[in-house]
Amino acid sequence: NHVLVLGYGELTEPILEELGDRARVVIVTPDEGRAKRLTDRGYDVVTDDPSDEEALQRTRVDAARSVVVATNNDAEDALAILTARQLNPDVHIVAAATQRENERKLRRAGANTVISPAALGGHFLAESAVGGSGLETIEERLLDEQPTEPAEDGTGEADDPGTDDRN
Amino acid sequence: NHVLVLGYGELTEPILEELGDRARVVIVTPDEGRAKRLTDRGYDVVTDDPSDEEALQRTRVDAARSVVVATNNDAEDALAILTARQLNPDVHIVAAATQRENERKLRRAGANTVISPAALGGHFLAESAVGGSGLETIEERLLDEQPTEPAEDGTGEADDPGTDDRN
Ligand SMILES: [Ca+2]
Ligand SMILES: [Ca+2]
Repeated sequence: NHVLVLGYGELTEPILEELGDRARVVIVTPDEGRAKRLTDRGYDVVTDDPSDEEALQRTRVDAARSVVVATNNDAEDALAILTARQLNPDVHIVAAATQRENERKLRRAGANTVISPAALGGHFLAESAVGGSGLETIEERLLDEQPTEPAEDGTGEADDPGTDDRN
Repeated sequence: NHVLVLGYGELTEPILEELGDRARVVIVTPDEGRAKRLTDRGYDVVTDDPSDEEALQRTRVDAARSVVVATNNDAEDALAILTARQLNPDVHIVAAATQRENERKLRRAGANTVISPAALGGHFLAESAVGGSGLETIEERLLDEQPTEPAEDGTGEADDPGTDDRN
């Protein structure tokens, strides 16, 4: 009943922070240095290609609560989604499209939810620019959850997966 | 009483789409080809550096409703924010940090609102992965606004600034 994170990209640290201790996380990445650093932080990591069938079987995609696919390479994401969907027709797959125009393709590959960080960012910036609607409060709530307040002088990065200072 | 968009990056098209006809938009970009394409689409464009004081004076930063700073280069964004803030101490400046760790710096440079697309994306993906809270509906509302539904077979890109098919 774990969350299976396929690959590592710009969104992965925010995702790991948000997941915090809300779920057991298993990560698949082909990057050996990255895998070692994640292991050192206490994560379960398998060093393999995120679209390798054997790797997904080994990380129990058949029993996963959900699968997160969000590297900076949408083509690799598509292949990882296709693999996960093939091995588990029922699992909830969420993905991020680095290029907005790939959102639909990742959905067709089998992802249940696909977001575009650029579209989300554009949405909130435009709302803020025209000062519109109740979204201001949603935005503020989201912003408040991000470790960017000048209260402390650290880097704002959470390196310890066991630490969640936002709640 | 216009929205002044300083620079052009990955978020600019989503921002222009969201702004739609809710505001008059003036764009400053040093890229001549980009400037021409935007002009052809009906936008007011000044071909100059987004941190050039004279360019910001010419585009009336003193009378702007808000300033949007969201290129893929956070250093250039910082300089553009500093310039805009210097020329108009009261204008509402919104910005996007490509690197999450630059959020605080862009705020210190003078932006009122700074978002991180990676943090936003990670937030929504993690929420979807653990199936949590009322954010699911917010996410769905946001997703519904994005032109990614398979209802039509176009590219999902809006090239005509006068067309807003989301409302
Ligand atoms: Ca991606
Ligand atoms: Ca930026």
